[in-house]
Amino acid sequence: MTSSFFPPHRTLMGPGPSDVSPRVLGALSRPTIGHLDPLFVKLMDEIKVLLQFAFKTGNELTLPVSAPGSAGMEACFVNLVSPGDKVIVCQNGVFGGRMKENVERSGGVAVMVEDEWGRPVSVEKATAAFDQHPDAAILAFVHAETSTGVRSDAAALCNLARERGALSIVDTVTSLGGIDVDVDGWGADAVYSGTQKCLSCVPGIAPVTFSAQSVERIQKRTHKVQSWFLDMQLVMGYWGGSSKRAYHHTAPVNALYALHEALVILQEEGLEASFRRHRRNHEALVAGLEAMGLAMAVAPEDRLPQLNSVLIPAGVDDAVVRGALLNDFNLEIGAGLGALAGKTWRIGLMGHSSNEQNVVACLNALEAVLGREGADITSGKALLAAKAVYAD
Amino acid sequence: MTSSFFPPHRTLMGPGPSDVSPRVLGALSRPTIGHLDPLFVKLMDEIKVLLQFAFKTGNELTLPVSAPGSAGMEACFVNLVSPGDKVIVCQNGVFGGRMKENVERSGGVAVMVEDEWGRPVSVEKATAAFDQHPDAAILAFVHAETSTGVRSDAAALCNLARERGALSIVDTVTSLGGIDVDVDGWGADAVYSGTQKCLSCVPGIAPVTFSAQSVERIQKRTHKVQSWFLDMQLVMGYWGGSSKRAYHHTAPVNALYALHEALVILQEEGLEASFRRHRRNHEALVAGLEAMGLAMAVAPEDRLPQLNSVLIPAGVDDAVVRGALLNDFNLEIGAGLGALAGKTWRIGLMGHSSNEQNVVACLNALEAVLGREGADITSGKALLAAKAVYAD
Repeated sequence: MTSSFFPPHRTLMGPGPSDVSPRVLGALSRPTIGHLDPLFVKLMDEIKVLLQFAFKTGNELTLPVSAPGSAGMEACFVNLVSPGDKVIVCQNGVFGGRMKENVERSGGVAVMVEDEWGRPVSVEKATAAFDQHPDAAILAFVHAETSTGVRSDAAALCNLARERGALSIVDTVTSLGGIDVDVDGWGADAVYSGTQKCLSCVPGIAPVTFSAQSVERIQKRTHKVQSWFLDMQLVMGYWGGSSKRAYHHTAPVNALYALHEALVILQEEGLEASFRRHRRNHEALVAGLEAMGLAMAVAPEDRLPQLNSVLIPAGVDDAVVRGALLNDFNLEIGAGLGALAGKTWRIGLMGHSSNEQNVVACLNALEAVLGREGADITSGKALLAAKAVYAD
Repeated sequence: MTSSFFPPHRTLMGPGPSDVSPRVLGALSRPTIGHLDPLFVKLMDEIKVLLQFAFKTGNELTLPVSAPGSAGMEACFVNLVSPGDKVIVCQNGVFGGRMKENVERSGGVAVMVEDEWGRPVSVEKATAAFDQHPDAAILAFVHAETSTGVRSDAAALCNLARERGALSIVDTVTSLGGIDVDVDGWGADAVYSGTQKCLSCVPGIAPVTFSAQSVERIQKRTHKVQSWFLDMQLVMGYWGGSSKRAYHHTAPVNALYALHEALVILQEEGLEASFRRHRRNHEALVAGLEAMGLAMAVAPEDRLPQLNSVLIPAGVDDAVVRGALLNDFNLEIGAGLGALAGKTWRIGLMGHSSNEQNVVACLNALEAVLGREGADITSGKALLAAKAVYAD
């Protein structure tokens, strides 16, 4: 016989999921109601408005896809890419590579613009790609690369796409709620995110938003969207504006209670206040890490405050340190991904996890573990450096 | 400012979601841990074993897809169907039609075998379809049609597919946990289900299982699976047997806590005991409905005990009755779907919702509402008839 599962209480400072607040967990476990219940339909309407607030958009087609961020990505690609379409994909980490897969599996042709992992997407290279491929229909890029902790210039890239008569697909999985995501200001066309990063909701849902231009493109398709589950023309019938909702699939009712509560919390704090909080905790963490003698992997101007890539000091075993943090301190930090595996740690300060207590706990635990692993670090200075940022 | 959402406490007797037990809601709201945490990986292993138990299978590739049942269906089709493949699809309700969409969007050719809504799939017609299309690679059908409340003969249909050298894809969304689903006994090849029916877990997850033959077919594909998110070759890397799990997507951690608990509860009760309970409550409900003068829409031998289709009496307004049940009694029953819209109600007795208290409450509420709506029913007999079944 299998027993019930009781997880420990971890502090989640990896690349996501982040800590989920008791308020959101409380909402999650409220009694399930039907997915066509009039009260649930009202909740859906509120979620749409709250997502419009978080994305800073008036886009009518703004909703949570009933699956993780990867499915949100796929929803954007399968709806906008038709067989033969050329898509310029900017890659500077893991998720650009996944975009390429999505383009190709949708029958499109991916034109890759490669940048070094740990550097932002080059607007110049993307411009050159359009010069070479003026028939490209879409430009796709990642705003906040979760694999490296790098921010790219979404406003410039969306503007470039518009100038070239192309649509833009933007990954904001790690940025939404943590740094400015300005969908209408950028003029972005299809934008997806995840719930388990700076929204600090449970993982499993992908907010998406589509501009009027991208909806027009979807409506003009002559080739059916290859995914029935992610076909926005069908999903719109359930999430659409009319009071009569057409059954499409059974919505993940409780996960949407949780998303609603996470968005209510974000609205209470305010977007700008949330961005400031993420910025401040990031500065304190970096001050502490640098005082310890560790080096950041990303140049200051390109860093994401919510996801801090740190170079692993020479001679230190990546897995041993992360294992000790997890087992002795119940603290999760992330490993490097892809080209950066074994070279960096990724320390998340996302959403509910972005607070002074976590910064202090992480610096303290890391100093203890690195010290006993014999790493060449400076002891006793990290907390003071972090505290100085908060005192400022 | 938007306020937090507090749902009422409904009794869910529609076609799903069913009532979620407090134990499952409790598991759902336990603290989130990382999706690569060693303790979470252990939980995933337990879920696999519990799903093998529920599906009665030894299939190694048995796991929960991180999205609703519709995505579980799509996972089966996009992995097994390659462009040009011929698939015999049996349709006797809404979900057979959705299978056709899945075949066609996967580039396959659907050969439709149509049966009347409310009747089981005809094994004879499916046999004739194979006679006409001996090159068909797959037979797809719905074991328990959620839109009509009808059970089809899964053993005979899977056997037919095997005899003709084809694979079978079986929808068990509404059957798993409520009536016998015998994947290995049937020799079924790709089977999907949902969490929100007889497992009484929150909606949003789709258990699937693939036979060795279907895994072989997936591995021999020459054309990439069109969905990156649902590509089983990639998903296997995360859910596979090795202790080193490759990151694919962020698992819906809390929803999997809930699924684990729901399966632990099913294991505690035992499959046969759960089937008996579903059967008994069904018999009591039917006795009560018939004593009231209502007629069932499906022949006795074809009925699903967990989903009872009742003919709406002449002159009664479908929506008014369902609205009154919801608003005055907090009781949800389902409308008819597709060809049966406005003609039937669907009363679910699924999982945690399948109990005597719900049978009594539903009969009592229905009698009160139909009485005041002026329907031609017999009063005062329903509860006695139901009680007689329990006393038996």
